[in-house]
Amino acid sequence: MSKQYNVAILGATGAVGTRMIEQLAQSTIPVKHVKLLASKKSAGKTLQFKGQPVTVEETTPESFDGVDIVLSSAGGSVSKKFLPEAVKRGAVCVDNTSAFRMEPDVPLVVPEVNEAALKDHHGIVANPNCSTIQMVMALEPVRRNFGLKQIVVSTYQAASGAGQSALNEMYQEAQDFLDGKDMQPDAHILPTKGDKKHYPLAFNLLPQIDVLEESGYSHEEWKMIHETKKIMLGDMNSQDIKVTATCVRVPVPIAHGESVYFTVEDESATAQDIMRVVADFPGNVLEDDIAHQIYPQPINAVGKRETFVGRIRPDYENKGAFNMWVVADNLLKGAAWNTVENAERLVALGLV
Amino acid sequence: MSKQYNVAILGATGAVGTRMIEQLAQSTIPVKHVKLLASKKSAGKTLQFKGQPVTVEETTPESFDGVDIVLSSAGGSVSKKFLPEAVKRGAVCVDNTSAFRMEPDVPLVVPEVNEAALKDHHGIVANPNCSTIQMVMALEPVRRNFGLKQIVVSTYQAASGAGQSALNEMYQEAQDFLDGKDMQPDAHILPTKGDKKHYPLAFNLLPQIDVLEESGYSHEEWKMIHETKKIMLGDMNSQDIKVTATCVRVPVPIAHGESVYFTVEDESATAQDIMRVVADFPGNVLEDDIAHQIYPQPINAVGKRETFVGRIRPDYENKGAFNMWVVADNLLKGAAWNTVENAERLVALGLV
Repeated sequence: MSKQYNVAILGATGAVGTRMIEQLAQSTIPVKHVKLLASKKSAGKTLQFKGQPVTVEETTPESFDGVDIVLSSAGGSVSKKFLPEAVKRGAVCVDNTSAFRMEPDVPLVVPEVNEAALKDHHGIVANPNCSTIQMVMALEPVRRNFGLKQIVVSTYQAASGAGQSALNEMYQEAQDFLDGKDMQPDAHILPTKGDKKHYPLAFNLLPQIDVLEESGYSHEEWKMIHETKKIMLGDMNSQDIKVTATCVRVPVPIAHGESVYFTVEDESATAQDIMRVVADFPGNVLEDDIAHQIYPQPINAVGKRETFVGRIRPDYENKGAFNMWVVADNLLKGAAWNTVENAERLVALGLV
Repeated sequence: MSKQYNVAILGATGAVGTRMIEQLAQSTIPVKHVKLLASKKSAGKTLQFKGQPVTVEETTPESFDGVDIVLSSAGGSVSKKFLPEAVKRGAVCVDNTSAFRMEPDVPLVVPEVNEAALKDHHGIVANPNCSTIQMVMALEPVRRNFGLKQIVVSTYQAASGAGQSALNEMYQEAQDFLDGKDMQPDAHILPTKGDKKHYPLAFNLLPQIDVLEESGYSHEEWKMIHETKKIMLGDMNSQDIKVTATCVRVPVPIAHGESVYFTVEDESATAQDIMRVVADFPGNVLEDDIAHQIYPQPINAVGKRETFVGRIRPDYENKGAFNMWVVADNLLKGAAWNTVENAERLVALGLV
């Protein structure tokens, strides 16, 4: 019988954590035992794994004794505190927070794009930011076949990217707006929890995701720029592909949209060529049939593991330049599924 | 006493028409008499102009006898049918539909940008598309001071751009979604009335505005590309400024957002320079103070005539390239106010 794994899910009660439980249950990983970890506040709750009740435990360093694989999505400070403890005890961690993404010895991995980086892990593998993952899924086949020179991305990001409480806040605001009430008193979390001011998202647009930095860019935009370079080129500061980003929160519950403008090295590439290589790439679904009004929409992407790509067309005034529209479930491919997928690949490659 | 004007509003009962009545009442135009025109269906309704009741009349060619100024927003086919009749009777028409925008002898005018074009009118002045207006407001001061080479725009367009019925449809969908019901049965209009398939907009994103054409671009995207060139350069096909666009409908009632990436000729321009010229341009308001989380938001722009610009920052990897975020009330600066403003300027310049 092949090896079976003890798996711990850190942050098991959150929007991503609950989906990690589901994705792990459906994965190819032979799970011997699952441990659900959270803060003291959530300890004692009961969740289900493959139809069996599992009691949530408070996280301590000793929680990781005997654990082979940790899937973590409890926030950066929790990962920073506990993942080194888990590694010390022999576990391999796939971390969905931004805590270790830019560490030189931590692979930042979207398996379809740069699975080979997994072999360099020292106990921690980082899962990229949700908006970065779906963009590199759409663009990696373009880079491999035609070379990528520049990316200009504008995002349309769902409320759930800021957590379950942000999503609940948006729903409350929406109901209040429809009832003719003021939404401002509902706004306690968005645009970003730790910041000073909070604004309603329902029926509105917030061009701030994470904190705004002195550079003029939000931290989310910074992540899209530097994570893309690390994933595609292995160097977070490479200028071999130039990247710029504008990140906007939109009143959508789940699934991010992205308007991506990009230029390629091989100027003989046509929109049909781009469509073909995007469609052939594992994990992507081409939804691009304008005669039948087929294009990616968030409501169709919810609950799916794939990245949906459409509206691929040339910029007729710039050779080698194209526009496209990309949608994926930010809680699955953008978080829980990509994390579990990384763990699946670690197991398959004998790296855990 | 200075001249007073007889003004007819064509399409007076619509989302834009009712705002034209308000904007006309607040304008500098000395109005002698106002005539409210609509289809047979709406005839007999009573609306208010400066506190006085005015009965809506069915539009006929004879409706324009004695009329000096026509403000039109009843759809392209209505404009095509009736505006030549109004011109024949001596009226000057400002048309908010796309019917005449690309006619070589019809000025396409945003007064702050290209008021001088008004003097070439032959009875009809066209109001540009809503998404084009706010973009050229933000970019014209950049063009004048630093030269513009390229524009890449992604829009976040409000439901009201598709009319009052589309807005009502989105509200119904939103309530149904919050009540746990299926939204699809509500979808009869969006993404665009005349098309075959209809999709829910509430809590969703629709990357189609107007019809999708064989080029791969939607007609809305085509308008943004070619109207921008006609307004800024006087030539709808000029390539002196290269423009590409992705237009997306978002679940916001009023006020469009735009993520605009642009490159300038004068590479010595800084983000501070761009902020200064944008702020100094009449009709623009700079909302750009990231330390205090100040940036344009649709809910703050509703009911305002101005164009709001923020998040101005350099693309650090491309000299002379910048990102910015632009918001304006699509029914006011994007439609009713820009139309009335064109009429104000025609009066002030003695062109009517």
